[in-house]
Amino acid sequence: MTSPAYEYLCTQFRRVALLAETSAMLTWDAATMMPPGGAAARGEQLAELAGLSHEILTAPRVAESLAAAEAMPPENPWHAANLKLMRHAYSRAAALPRDLVEAQARANSACEKVWRTARKEADFALVRPHFEEVLRLTREAAAALSASLGLSPYDALMDGHQRGIGAAEVRPLFAQLEAFLRDAIREAEARQAQTAPPLSPAGPFPIPVQEALCRELAEQLGLDFTHARFDRSLHPFCGGIPSDVRITTRYEEADFSQALQAVLHEVGHALYEQNLPRDFARLPVGEAAGMAVHESQSLIIEMQAGRSDAFLGWLGPRLHAAFGGDAAVYAAENLARLWRRVSRGFIRVDADELTYPLHVILRFRLEEALIAGQLAVADLPAAWNEGMHSLLGITPPNDALGCLQDIHWYDGSFGYFPSYTLGAMAAAQLMAAVRAAVPELDVALAEGDFSPLLHWLREHVHSKGSLYSVHELLRQATGRPLETAAFEQHLKARYLGDR
Amino acid sequence: MTSPAYEYLCTQFRRVALLAETSAMLTWDAATMMPPGGAAARGEQLAELAGLSHEILTAPRVAESLAAAEAMPPENPWHAANLKLMRHAYSRAAALPRDLVEAQARANSACEKVWRTARKEADFALVRPHFEEVLRLTREAAAALSASLGLSPYDALMDGHQRGIGAAEVRPLFAQLEAFLRDAIREAEARQAQTAPPLSPAGPFPIPVQEALCRELAEQLGLDFTHARFDRSLHPFCGGIPSDVRITTRYEEADFSQALQAVLHEVGHALYEQNLPRDFARLPVGEAAGMAVHESQSLIIEMQAGRSDAFLGWLGPRLHAAFGGDAAVYAAENLARLWRRVSRGFIRVDADELTYPLHVILRFRLEEALIAGQLAVADLPAAWNEGMHSLLGITPPNDALGCLQDIHWYDGSFGYFPSYTLGAMAAAQLMAAVRAAVPELDVALAEGDFSPLLHWLREHVHSKGSLYSVHELLRQATGRPLETAAFEQHLKARYLGDR
Repeated sequence: MTSPAYEYLCTQFRRVALLAETSAMLTWDAATMMPPGGAAARGEQLAELAGLSHEILTAPRVAESLAAAEAMPPENPWHAANLKLMRHAYSRAAALPRDLVEAQARANSACEKVWRTARKEADFALVRPHFEEVLRLTREAAAALSASLGLSPYDALMDGHQRGIGAAEVRPLFAQLEAFLRDAIREAEARQAQTAPPLSPAGPFPIPVQEALCRELAEQLGLDFTHARFDRSLHPFCGGIPSDVRITTRYEEADFSQALQAVLHEVGHALYEQNLPRDFARLPVGEAAGMAVHESQSLIIEMQAGRSDAFLGWLGPRLHAAFGGDAAVYAAENLARLWRRVSRGFIRVDADELTYPLHVILRFRLEEALIAGQLAVADLPAAWNEGMHSLLGITPPNDALGCLQDIHWYDGSFGYFPSYTLGAMAAAQLMAAVRAAVPELDVALAEGDFSPLLHWLREHVHSKGSLYSVHELLRQATGRPLETAAFEQHLKARYLGDR
Repeated sequence: MTSPAYEYLCTQFRRVALLAETSAMLTWDAATMMPPGGAAARGEQLAELAGLSHEILTAPRVAESLAAAEAMPPENPWHAANLKLMRHAYSRAAALPRDLVEAQARANSACEKVWRTARKEADFALVRPHFEEVLRLTREAAAALSASLGLSPYDALMDGHQRGIGAAEVRPLFAQLEAFLRDAIREAEARQAQTAPPLSPAGPFPIPVQEALCRELAEQLGLDFTHARFDRSLHPFCGGIPSDVRITTRYEEADFSQALQAVLHEVGHALYEQNLPRDFARLPVGEAAGMAVHESQSLIIEMQAGRSDAFLGWLGPRLHAAFGGDAAVYAAENLARLWRRVSRGFIRVDADELTYPLHVILRFRLEEALIAGQLAVADLPAAWNEGMHSLLGITPPNDALGCLQDIHWYDGSFGYFPSYTLGAMAAAQLMAAVRAAVPELDVALAEGDFSPLLHWLREHVHSKGSLYSVHELLRQATGRPLETAAFEQHLKARYLGDR
């Protein structure tokens, strides 16, 4: 028996979820469909929806009902987890006064707009005053959340993207990974230098052909198009809601890899959303377990399965049939060398699997320092360039290739970056468990069949919603909390021939 | 000086307007983009937004602020009208308890779904119980609104679509129009019988060519695509918001007329939205003056200007250039005969300009009787068929071609139908005024130039928002309240050669 207080909370959280669904659709529309003249109104619509959610969540009766429901013994672990997450959502909302939330929305939106010009012109000074205001308000919010949640200010921000893991855990994990990668990159480069470069696919690759191929691939991976759309946007993303998920990619006529890899990645996100537990739809426990876990689901499809020898053997002939040209280009062995090429570059989103984590580690350290007040905005470009030199041995020639490259900070998003690499670690750890549990995995992938992988992910990840913390989810699924071992092993096998 | 009470009301009405904008976008998405699996969630999102708007509008402080603001002398006519419209919106919202609104939303949605099947299978019995429930709830709502607004129940429903005109006025206008049309149709048919039928354009007309042409035409008419989109949907419509208006059409490869005429029509609606007074954006007085006025703006573009000899002379060569084939087909004279052909048919949306009002008159009389409880749902099919026979001399062979053809009633929309013909009357009346005021109108239309027409409409209609009632708007713009004279004169000139 659930209590009336608990039922009331469920009703209110479902209302908040409906507003979040509405915002998700408007956000998707803004990135894919909206004419430029609609932007100002869209910003105000989203702000109103956010304000209403805040109002519903922080109503006195919600606080009273939480106390009443917490006084009752939970009916089962799902209800217990749901109530805990409701308390958590309430604590986050109640910590932030509405005028701070609105000031942040305005400052972030203004800064993001100037950032677009600043990046184009590689002119950090242009965005600096706006970014200082964004950081000031973010630190104010972080301090308020810190007091309410009993976390450090930076952890309180991380907590907004992935609950259950903070900087004290991330620091040693990243230190260990950094040490491993410094050697691994050198070794992989040395191995690479001894072999001929891969054959390059010769374009142009007509965009309608790429688009048809991407759509087929998404269906092949298991995306259900009665509950999904596939469109174009400037940056690929997965949006929408579980029963109506919306993925996007972007196309370049000269290179099909980018569109294709983005589809693999976004379909991974989409399958997670489509398979969340329906019994708890629109309740906190029915949501995805956080952005690191979400990223593990995109990367297990894109990087783990999608770049496996088995799958490339299936994919190659399909690419050749679509694009024609030299069949040798599309041989699995050539595709593998093409898509596993290690290269120290300036841009995170273009980075290979081996150098990518160092881009993230740099950002994690810098944002921690920014939030702690140990790094001033004025000193960011120099700190960035020093960090790049120290971690990757290269120095960006300008800030567009340096600290201006990512939207995150300029849009007020701090504490998100670690999710990318925590997700890559989790993906490797989960894949090792799948391999152990599903011996026929590679046979299936070699036939383009993702169903054994999906079946396992559904059972061990998707269907769990937010029942467990990230560590507990991995412990239940793989026997171990989140750690670097499986990721290192995966990188060794793939890049250092250490099988 | 506006009072704090008035300012508070403006703030709250802007919030409601933002929720309405959000709903408009979600509704557009549902008709153009949404995969079928998203429908259930979309219904719940829209219901939540409607519930929130109701909550904001009916808050005690709104009622208090209305009383306080009404006690102050208005600053100017715009503020006075705005306040009056706020009171009106409050009265409508407060009259309806939230559970009735929600019961209606559920019943309408369930009935509309069954109606789709019933129409396909021409089986009225299938939808009858659902429709009875819709009608029962609609009558309950109409009674509640009637008491609150001091209007008859049917007028209270009409008032939801077009304020300022009720059945007592519509009845004699429609009776007069009916008498005119009975003779005019016979005469037009006799004239038509004496001339050769028009040449038929020979397809297929490739859909991409139609689409490009429609887009060019929309721009030619003055639609600003930095603030608009153009897509496809099952039924053409104009949605979105003034700064981001979204029009749609549908295509048939065998016939380009349908897509093209729909674009002319929807652009008319869109131009009205794009030119509403910005100073009063998101306030009641800044909105369109009602659905009859809205329809006048679509019909003045589609029917008055779009089927004028002058414009057809410009359009013909463009059509010929796009589609090729026999140039004689695209001669203005042939297009005129093609698009001004009178034919007694069963389907309203396929009807010509002359028979169309009789379809509306039938529906007006039947829905008035349904709401008054003088006509039972069980008797609707027979009453429909008798009405068609009496008005147009034809009897539908089944209910799909009869009382099941339109979505309106089955979706709970009553009191809307008169708007179509009131709009046609207003369009003719406005066009006569434009012709008197702008002697160069036909010269411009013959060059595909709508700007003199738009300039006049902006000044006399668009920029007025909801400042005036429909009669006062027409009186200010044309010197006369809404009446049938100009429409009859227009039809005589176009169909009976009476110039």
